[in-house]
Amino acid sequence: MSPKNVYFFGAGKAEGRTDMKNLLGGKGANLAEMTSIGIPVPAGFTITTEVCTYYYKNKKKYPQGLDKEVAQAMAKVEKAMGMKFGDLKNPLLISVRSGARKSMPGMMETVLNVGLTTKTIPGLIAKTNNPRFVWDAYRRLMMMYSDVVMEKAAGIEPKDDKGIRVQLDEIMDRLKHEKGYKLDTDLTVEDLQYLCGEFKKCIKDVLGKEFPDDPIAQLWGGISAVFQSWMGKRACAYRRIENIPDEWGTAVNVQAMVFGNMGESSATGVAFTRNPATGENWFYGEWLINAQGEDVVAGIRTPYALNERIKSDQNMQYPSLEKAMPKLYKELDGIRKKLEKHYKNMQDIEFTIQEGRLWMLQTRDGKRTGPAALKMAVDMMKEKLIEPATAIMRVTPLQLDELLHPMVDPVEEKKYTPIAKGLPAGPGGGTGKIVFSADRAEEMAKNGEKVVLVRNETSPEDIHGMHVAEAILTAKGGMTSHAALVARGWGKCCIVGCGALNIDYAGRKMTVHGKVYKEGEIITLNGSKGCVYEGALPLVVIDPTKNPELKIFLDACDKVAKLKVWTNADTPKDAAQARAFGAKGIGLTRTEHMFFAPDRIKAMREMIVAETKETRRAAVMKLLPFQKSDFIGILEAMQGLPVTIRLLDPPLHEFLPQEPKQVAELAADLGVTVEKIEGRIKQLHELNPMLGLRGCRLGIIYPEITEMQVRAILEAGAVLTKKKVKVFPEIMIPLVGNVKEFIHQKNIVLQIAQDVKKEYGIKNLYFTVGTMIEVPRAALTADEIAKEAQFFSFGTNDLTQMGCGFSRDDAGSFLPEYVGMGIYAVDPFETLDQTGVGQLVAMGVQKGRASRPDLKIGICGEHGGNPDSIDFCHRVGLNYVSCSPFRVPIARLAAAQAALRNADSCKSCKASPKPKAKAKAKKK
Amino acid sequence: MSPKNVYFFGAGKAEGRTDMKNLLGGKGANLAEMTSIGIPVPAGFTITTEVCTYYYKNKKKYPQGLDKEVAQAMAKVEKAMGMKFGDLKNPLLISVRSGARKSMPGMMETVLNVGLTTKTIPGLIAKTNNPRFVWDAYRRLMMMYSDVVMEKAAGIEPKDDKGIRVQLDEIMDRLKHEKGYKLDTDLTVEDLQYLCGEFKKCIKDVLGKEFPDDPIAQLWGGISAVFQSWMGKRACAYRRIENIPDEWGTAVNVQAMVFGNMGESSATGVAFTRNPATGENWFYGEWLINAQGEDVVAGIRTPYALNERIKSDQNMQYPSLEKAMPKLYKELDGIRKKLEKHYKNMQDIEFTIQEGRLWMLQTRDGKRTGPAALKMAVDMMKEKLIEPATAIMRVTPLQLDELLHPMVDPVEEKKYTPIAKGLPAGPGGGTGKIVFSADRAEEMAKNGEKVVLVRNETSPEDIHGMHVAEAILTAKGGMTSHAALVARGWGKCCIVGCGALNIDYAGRKMTVHGKVYKEGEIITLNGSKGCVYEGALPLVVIDPTKNPELKIFLDACDKVAKLKVWTNADTPKDAAQARAFGAKGIGLTRTEHMFFAPDRIKAMREMIVAETKETRRAAVMKLLPFQKSDFIGILEAMQGLPVTIRLLDPPLHEFLPQEPKQVAELAADLGVTVEKIEGRIKQLHELNPMLGLRGCRLGIIYPEITEMQVRAILEAGAVLTKKKVKVFPEIMIPLVGNVKEFIHQKNIVLQIAQDVKKEYGIKNLYFTVGTMIEVPRAALTADEIAKEAQFFSFGTNDLTQMGCGFSRDDAGSFLPEYVGMGIYAVDPFETLDQTGVGQLVAMGVQKGRASRPDLKIGICGEHGGNPDSIDFCHRVGLNYVSCSPFRVPIARLAAAQAALRNADSCKSCKASPKPKAKAKAKKK
Repeated sequence: MSPKNVYFFGAGKAEGRTDMKNLLGGKGANLAEMTSIGIPVPAGFTITTEVCTYYYKNKKKYPQGLDKEVAQAMAKVEKAMGMKFGDLKNPLLISVRSGARKSMPGMMETVLNVGLTTKTIPGLIAKTNNPRFVWDAYRRLMMMYSDVVMEKAAGIEPKDDKGIRVQLDEIMDRLKHEKGYKLDTDLTVEDLQYLCGEFKKCIKDVLGKEFPDDPIAQLWGGISAVFQSWMGKRACAYRRIENIPDEWGTAVNVQAMVFGNMGESSATGVAFTRNPATGENWFYGEWLINAQGEDVVAGIRTPYALNERIKSDQNMQYPSLEKAMPKLYKELDGIRKKLEKHYKNMQDIEFTIQEGRLWMLQTRDGKRTGPAALKMAVDMMKEKLIEPATAIMRVTPLQLDELLHPMVDPVEEKKYTPIAKGLPAGPGGGTGKIVFSADRAEEMAKNGEKVVLVRNETSPEDIHGMHVAEAILTAKGGMTSHAALVARGWGKCCIVGCGALNIDYAGRKMTVHGKVYKEGEIITLNGSKGCVYEGALPLVVIDPTKNPELKIFLDACDKVAKLKVWTNADTPKDAAQARAFGAKGIGLTRTEHMFFAPDRIKAMREMIVAETKETRRAAVMKLLPFQKSDFIGILEAMQGLPVTIRLLDPPLHEFLPQEPKQVAELAADLGVTVEKIEGRIKQLHELNPMLGLRGCRLGIIYPEITEMQVRAILEAGAVLTKKKVKVFPEIMIPLVGNVKEFIHQKNIVLQIAQDVKKEYGIKNLYFTVGTMIEVPRAALTADEIAKEAQFFSFGTNDLTQMGCGFSRDDAGSFLPEYVGMGIYAVDPFETLDQTGVGQLVAMGVQKGRASRPDLKIGICGEHGGNPDSIDFCHRVGLNYVSCSPFRVPIARLAAAQAALRNADSCKSCKASPKPKAKAKAKKK
Repeated sequence: MSPKNVYFFGAGKAEGRTDMKNLLGGKGANLAEMTSIGIPVPAGFTITTEVCTYYYKNKKKYPQGLDKEVAQAMAKVEKAMGMKFGDLKNPLLISVRSGARKSMPGMMETVLNVGLTTKTIPGLIAKTNNPRFVWDAYRRLMMMYSDVVMEKAAGIEPKDDKGIRVQLDEIMDRLKHEKGYKLDTDLTVEDLQYLCGEFKKCIKDVLGKEFPDDPIAQLWGGISAVFQSWMGKRACAYRRIENIPDEWGTAVNVQAMVFGNMGESSATGVAFTRNPATGENWFYGEWLINAQGEDVVAGIRTPYALNERIKSDQNMQYPSLEKAMPKLYKELDGIRKKLEKHYKNMQDIEFTIQEGRLWMLQTRDGKRTGPAALKMAVDMMKEKLIEPATAIMRVTPLQLDELLHPMVDPVEEKKYTPIAKGLPAGPGGGTGKIVFSADRAEEMAKNGEKVVLVRNETSPEDIHGMHVAEAILTAKGGMTSHAALVARGWGKCCIVGCGALNIDYAGRKMTVHGKVYKEGEIITLNGSKGCVYEGALPLVVIDPTKNPELKIFLDACDKVAKLKVWTNADTPKDAAQARAFGAKGIGLTRTEHMFFAPDRIKAMREMIVAETKETRRAAVMKLLPFQKSDFIGILEAMQGLPVTIRLLDPPLHEFLPQEPKQVAELAADLGVTVEKIEGRIKQLHELNPMLGLRGCRLGIIYPEITEMQVRAILEAGAVLTKKKVKVFPEIMIPLVGNVKEFIHQKNIVLQIAQDVKKEYGIKNLYFTVGTMIEVPRAALTADEIAKEAQFFSFGTNDLTQMGCGFSRDDAGSFLPEYVGMGIYAVDPFETLDQTGVGQLVAMGVQKGRASRPDLKIGICGEHGGNPDSIDFCHRVGLNYVSCSPFRVPIARLAAAQAALRNADSCKSCKASPKPKAKAKAKKK
């Protein structure tokens, strides 16, 4: 027996199910599912994706018997709807739509009103008593069908690049012009009848074929048009970007049409089962009486509020569905509850009321803002609609990030009209002064001004300006243009292809729809939507600690997470902030920042220019009281939790004065000649400071630095221990590449510890000694190092720089383009390069634990706050991730999701595959 | 039965053998072996190293029965020598010497003349008729024995740091002063008798013990002194440096003494079986009539030539042994032949003639110069004395290097007297102007002057001056001082602890033995010997291609080597030179040097400042004819052999002018503003250029550069191919870290190749496309890269820089000290860091071949010419090493030795263990 090619749904019964998405496509499976659970759905049937595959494998032939299956299914549809396809009295109209396994919005073809012919028109007019509606539908069918089926699907190359659709539009425009009409709705029945006649002639002339007057021919034309569009240019390009294989194919959904524009008892609407902006559990949506679905979203008519509660200033005067059609509203509200209960998620639904009867056209998981996602997840968990694990998987780290980062205030944004629209190439909001050149951008940014770089298009020469800009706006270019590639690489707000801009570089101004904007004037971009606004729109960040749902949600996360989340903090204030966000320790305290205060930098500089070991030690020791009090502060703020303190890391020349005036001051202070200071600065100059005298190399060449820092840490520990404050300092040796470097520094620590214990009369003084793993050689020899070190912390910033061989400071000249070209799928400084650098991490963990099974291992590079990287950290078995205080909530979520996703018996992981760095865009 | 503790040798029979070195020590095993093969050796016995081990494991007790074994062996010695130990008439005197498994010259104790007592003195006088000889021997015994046995071995702490030896010396000096003597030999019999009496009193006074007058007591005192000295300070320190385990222990050799100073029929000498300086196969040595061994080497008397042929100006007037004692010379010459035949190597021998009878005291493999080592190896191979494999292992790469690098001309050096001597801390010769500060050194070096840095001692602040100096000389410090550590780390000529120097920094001068040397005066250092000379001694390098043995030797090497040796060459001249040295291909042609010629740099700069792709391409294409002709030259020079050409690698700013004048010129040339050029220079500035926009990143961001270079290569190939010249260009993409980078560049190559073939009408145009593996990530993902690349070449310079995280340019501030401290055993830029970076290489090979089993893999970093690294390359299975032309001979030898050393059934490998980077020096 040949496989089943057609799946019917309708009248409460369906042959398909939600979990048959691969076979029926997302839309078809969903329509079947809705039908099954008793939701009123216009009957229809789905032709499987396998037919599509067969079609392309067999020279665009259909499987044998498909026509029979379609005919049988159509008969069931007719029965369910009480109408007949092609019937003269009671004709059924149908839609023919695509439906792939994964949504490809707008990329494939749709044909509506199929079944309208010269023979069925009179019957439909008689039945609806609405000749205008019928003729308009016929006109629409002709325009759509001739374009989609007769021209595009047939592969006819339009003459002079002027397709049939354009020619029909011209005919209609001409008529409107002659009659002085503005809107399509001004056209009368007679106008439409006339147009349909003209259209027929034109189609015959241009395409050499009659517009088919046979419903069955129209149906098959529609089906083949959908299948053809699977291999259309747009669809293919989209699949390349989204990594959708060609082999998946699309299904075809043939469904009875219902009309919301059949008079005052008809209506149409779109709704969310909860508020998608706030998450509030209240029915939220819009509708219109006597209208078609597209009218609600097109913005021509102001849509009405679905119920009284959600009425706004704009639609206060219009009736709500709740008031206008209370019975139907009640039915709809019942469906809302049923759908949420069934899908266990907020649904985005479309409905149509045709002459008093409610039909559901669509349901799908609704898109939502970050705050809404969080609230819904927590609410549904409280309602016991979903398990905590599901709630955790329901909020993406990006959504949580929305709670923490600037975006154009959505409430305020509604009050403004964009001056122009372009392609949303880089996310978030940005506001600043217009500049038209990269150099100017850099110049103004250096003066502390926020700028938006506006260019016709960008090139590698503009990188420095793009880098400092709050946002980037280009007149030309698409989603794969230089600007888009770079901005996506950086995650920077960006709009491209904004054709309304007319830029005059020489005059430092641009004209947008006739209005002039000069350099220095302020604009705001919503890069997530592609909207450009005049002036400074407010950007918002909501204080996450004030969000009542966040604590509940993150506590649930902590329960399932295997990875602990620590923080990178250099001050007691940062430490306290991170603790408030739920950090369970400090993974990285940088000590170098402590040296820059004016009262300290002097001693530091004195140390650097010292000529002998003795004077150097004397200078260094002046820093001891400062460092000690710093450490007392931070250890106290984190009492009860571990605090990982990294010894001095950056090259010494960073501490030296750069300006001649400062040099002279220092020379005077130290009582040496200016030449001497200049000589020392010159001597400390390095060609590649990242690979020079820094990290533990400093502490080995100048052991007195290590001695001072360790003494400061341990004396701080001793002081607090004597006060009965529980403190856990962990001393971290930076930039170790060779176990012998570590041993050298560790020996200093052990010696000082002995001294301090004796001096303070303390028997048990807590401390551990561990190391950063940030040099590739350290990962390669982690087995040796772990024999000596009590903990590892992966410094994946440096590990990436050295592993990939590009410095973060300098990679700006090529890395954004690399990301754009897909050489690196994502910026490896943002998301850990699992293929390459990840091997070093995995090797470090495996070798380290081979030597010391209970080795504590964390990560303190910026990847510690990146969800994909956190998933990797979970998989390789790290104990904790450490990130900046504001990333702590995101890391807690990501850690929990990683645990759920990678659990052996986890439902969620089937739904959401392991995140894999995927190409955001690719050239050719 | 307890193990045998004592091994007798004498009268043609021996219980030991050469291969019992571990048990008998080197010296004992050798004496036994010589005895066995019929060489006349004074009889004796060896107490095993196991006794030493037992001694230290058992609270310095000897194994039971040792005394009995010693007594039995002594009886055999007496019998063999026809004398009796302690006998009143015919007393036997013996020596007690150490003898470890591995030679530890001067590190342990020796006691001579054991057996002389008040009772045996008269008998010996009667027998020798030489009372002065006997009393002098007694005096020597007392001085040596009281010091070594009675004080040092007994662990007596000398008062006021003034040991017994010093006090006895003072007594003797006092007497000499009183009598107005200059030399010890001026002392009369009476003087000596008097001294012996004074010595006895002094010993009793100072050490509280009588000097033993019993031969057996003296014997056991000597034995225990030798065992004690195994754990002496000097010996322990030496073992730390040489990695000799304490557990090995030393043997004790007790041997009958023979005397060359018993009158005119006695003599003593040292000889080499061939000339150790030239390798000439002629008996070479020196002797003295009526003398002791030390007289020959002490330099007080001019030694005589062994035979007529080797007489020199210095000893022309003295008799040769050949003439003076023809029978004994003939016997000695016979022994010479016998020893060479037996040991199959040039021997360094010591002999003594006692009253007309010849005794051999020592034979060992003789040290030799590089040229001699080569000549002997080749000669012995020709003589069929040794196999080619043995010949190959007989010459160290360092010896071969002597043929290629400057050293103080050994012939000339003999004509000069050192003005001072110090410790030989860094090898080779160096000559230059004296400077007393690092800054001055740098300054003068910048002016092209050669300098020798002279300091009391050095510190890290002096590094820049040490770096530029030809040689380093310090007044203070030992073999582990800063200067010594740094110089050894760099392999730079250096002498430390040269106490004769009296430096006046302020006056910029030094006084040496009263003579003043000012800054700017020239001195020469022989760092291999520790000698400082006034003036410029000639440094010599012998042209290796003119050495007749070299070709034979290297051809033999090539026959066993598995690794091919290629070269790094950028010009046809270098290529020809390397071919003359036997290079079998070019592993690295850097193309960037070709851009610096004045007529080319302009186009290069034009390219760099170009604003658009079109102008950039136009500028780049101006370079095409230049590059093409370069490639024609080099490909032609290497016809028949592969030529690996690396595409542009360094950052672009290296090509830009630095001086304002040059900038102005460039601006004028290009017709743009100075500001524009300055802006571009600023834009190209990178913080860490090594990790910036370079390598294939350039070719990806500016593909026109790759297009031009590839076109130049392939057009050059096409031109030559049409001329029927066989050329094999291999195109190498630098700095690939990600396979997608490689694919991008490879696609350009393939496209250009198609075009060129078409344009030149050539069907088969040879080329391959491969990559450098120099970024750690490339090694980690070598499996992916090998799917696309036809060859790999490890760029271990960059791989080391990135793998270890230090740049070669900047590591000078710590790496020499690291090497000194033993953090890295050797400079990892000189010898590949096998533990760390080596893992990346091994991984790259294994992963690469997993994807492409026939992948051709080489190395083109400077490690390609380093013997230890070459051994590693052999072991990981590389196909070739590529090094600078002058290193090619060394690499060919190292490749052959690697093959022999690592062959499963190789005799040589037993003798010479795998070279392991060993600590040259270590701080505790």
